[in-house]
Amino acid sequence: MPVEKQLRKDARGILRAALEAADPREAVLRHARVKDDVLTAGGGRYPLSRFERVFVIGAGKAGAAMAAAVEKLLGKRIRGGMVNVKYGHTAKLRRIELNECGHPVPDEAGVRGSRRIAEIAAMAGERDLLICLISGGASALLPAPAEPVTLAAKQETTRLLLACGADIHEINAVRKHLSGLKGGQLARLAWPAAVLTLILSDVIGDNPDVIGSGPTAADVSTFGDSLGILDKYNIRSRVPSIVRERIEKGAAGAIEETPKPGDPGLERARNVIVGSNRLAVDAARAKAKELGYRTLVLSTTIQGETRDVAGVHASIAREIHGSGQPLRPPACVISGGETTVTLLGHGKGGRSQEFALAAAIGIAGMAKTLLLCAGTDGTDGPTDAAGALADGATVGRARELGLDPAAYLAENNSYEFFDALGDLIRTGPTNTNVMDVRLILVGK
Amino acid sequence: MPVEKQLRKDARGILRAALEAADPREAVLRHARVKDDVLTAGGGRYPLSRFERVFVIGAGKAGAAMAAAVEKLLGKRIRGGMVNVKYGHTAKLRRIELNECGHPVPDEAGVRGSRRIAEIAAMAGERDLLICLISGGASALLPAPAEPVTLAAKQETTRLLLACGADIHEINAVRKHLSGLKGGQLARLAWPAAVLTLILSDVIGDNPDVIGSGPTAADVSTFGDSLGILDKYNIRSRVPSIVRERIEKGAAGAIEETPKPGDPGLERARNVIVGSNRLAVDAARAKAKELGYRTLVLSTTIQGETRDVAGVHASIAREIHGSGQPLRPPACVISGGETTVTLLGHGKGGRSQEFALAAAIGIAGMAKTLLLCAGTDGTDGPTDAAGALADGATVGRARELGLDPAAYLAENNSYEFFDALGDLIRTGPTNTNVMDVRLILVGK
Repeated sequence: MPVEKQLRKDARGILRAALEAADPREAVLRHARVKDDVLTAGGGRYPLSRFERVFVIGAGKAGAAMAAAVEKLLGKRIRGGMVNVKYGHTAKLRRIELNECGHPVPDEAGVRGSRRIAEIAAMAGERDLLICLISGGASALLPAPAEPVTLAAKQETTRLLLACGADIHEINAVRKHLSGLKGGQLARLAWPAAVLTLILSDVIGDNPDVIGSGPTAADVSTFGDSLGILDKYNIRSRVPSIVRERIEKGAAGAIEETPKPGDPGLERARNVIVGSNRLAVDAARAKAKELGYRTLVLSTTIQGETRDVAGVHASIAREIHGSGQPLRPPACVISGGETTVTLLGHGKGGRSQEFALAAAIGIAGMAKTLLLCAGTDGTDGPTDAAGALADGATVGRARELGLDPAAYLAENNSYEFFDALGDLIRTGPTNTNVMDVRLILVGK
Repeated sequence: MPVEKQLRKDARGILRAALEAADPREAVLRHARVKDDVLTAGGGRYPLSRFERVFVIGAGKAGAAMAAAVEKLLGKRIRGGMVNVKYGHTAKLRRIELNECGHPVPDEAGVRGSRRIAEIAAMAGERDLLICLISGGASALLPAPAEPVTLAAKQETTRLLLACGADIHEINAVRKHLSGLKGGQLARLAWPAAVLTLILSDVIGDNPDVIGSGPTAADVSTFGDSLGILDKYNIRSRVPSIVRERIEKGAAGAIEETPKPGDPGLERARNVIVGSNRLAVDAARAKAKELGYRTLVLSTTIQGETRDVAGVHASIAREIHGSGQPLRPPACVISGGETTVTLLGHGKGGRSQEFALAAAIGIAGMAKTLLLCAGTDGTDGPTDAAGALADGATVGRARELGLDPAAYLAENNSYEFFDALGDLIRTGPTNTNVMDVRLILVGK
């Protein structure tokens, strides 16, 4: 097989390994196991005979597949439970109820489901085990405004914070203090029941207190911080009065804080990342090694403007050619994370396809070189593709078809470009999201 | 010594090693040596007793220091010569004449010097050795429009090409065909004399036919290509008529082409890169190893928007912390190349300082982590600094001083930011330029 063709085959195989590791069902079953009637996950041992009841709760876009995996694992052991999922993201289950609700804008169905989830947590006792399933979208899918705060008041506060340029950590700090479940409060509510949270991470850094606003993870932010953030952006007088009053009361010590690290209410709670960009990238790496490549993981937390990030990846490919650094061919460099696209044109595409297009220009003419980028959710931007791949011949092939790569990039029209070349990667929706996977392959 | 302090000390030491490798004098003396009356450079052997005369010619901003090194190396062996340098970039030499001329806009002094250089080349015979010194700025400092083309006509053509979006390869192809010396023509003029060109590369990829438009390197572009480029951008009728006529005549075969690879006129010419970003980065790497770091060269050809490139570097630092990939601490990742800044604000700074500022935001709060960026020419943007360094404490220290890092970045005001913190890197002008060096250090 010619090297170029082999690289294409290998790249697809390596991507497939990453997607398998990110599959919600596979992710749960790989990290949670039952043997001799003992459930183990993330270093925790849960002898099932010691528990009276097992409930399954949670929220997230991958909730249905994760819940199905838990049913497969524990079957009749499961007494019941409820997981909030996005409309249409449901499945047939035997024991766990799936509650369809609004995403990305939370709705009353979500609030009702969250109330039911809170009831299950509150009712569970010392001899009960709560398995909590968290995945992308959990923040919106587990809406639980602390009374008397309303969903609308919370949304208005978020809107104000976004408009004045608050960062995601600031926004989350405030939101946790307007919620009755986020910031570890769900776990405290469940105490003294044991809580095992299985998490499919869709955020940079895989921090359990960030994913879904951390319903079962210690919160380091305070009411005082929240008030400070409102003041920093001069919006204390502009947020809804029920929001202002709650945060002022909390900062004065009149409302119980979210549980902090070391809080006894969290002592029986464990958070286990079962799927993440890093785990997907590690799986890709293992596959690349198996295929005979020297491998290097660049970073799983890559952010920034897509075409510039693509340029850096193209530069690394060029260096592998030029000096055998950072590693000698056959080389496979893998990176993860999630970039952004500043829209300049009116074309069709997504960040992964745009990455491939900018990369194609960067590696034009280079032999034995391939770059690939794909979103693990299988839908890159508003397209039916997960991403695309480019090699040193891509630009030349495009020109032969009368396509000017630079013009397509200027128009953010990566979909049309790769569609014409037949180099889109189509996986269909995967019902998971652990951000993106990028590959640089340089053959020998 | 606390780790953070040690990292700062090490980073400066590693940068120093890179700058030493890029020093024009050191670069020449490291790659050209005389032993037993034989000059060796880049795999070439020049037994000095076999040569009747040695002449030194060339152009570039580092010309004075390179010429001084050659005088130190060959002393009385040198019969004479001329090197075009930028106004003020001169030195006291004994045998080689330095001719000060205009840069970046070429002037008549440059044309006169180039004419003298061409005379030396034309006059040299089979038993003569021409040492040609090329460094950054050589293209403008060796202006030799092919008659009847004038300097003004050439400049107008360049301006038109730039305005219609032609890329640097297209511009160079046209310019080489308007020149009497570029594109290998200086070497052909010197034939049958031996030509040894020592090059300090300031371009991505270190391609001898690109640096200074390659006066002694084979040219792959043709008159036909040049005409095609004028037509591609619809400017054939808009360039000065002496330009149009020359290119049309050349494309019709009525003017001799620039020498192509394999041209007999180039058979005695050798191009040796004595200084380059890669050599500087390699020196940095060797120093980091010596200091006990695990090292990795990311790429020496990094381009793109500075803040996004900085974000990728910060992500790599985060990954080293999080997973020990791409390498475990104590880690030193090195990259080279040259990024760009899209000016959005009105502050004072340069690409290296802006890199450090964006990186500071990306690594805020991370322990034992330092990023540094410096331009090897010692003058980053319109400032007296070469660059700056940032560690995990930079953002916190800035806030204590009342400086908002994001606001300074938005204003492209990196100089003021790092000046206030005392974290500028000042080397003074180095009279060299091999682009930038960036370091990521993560301590154990």
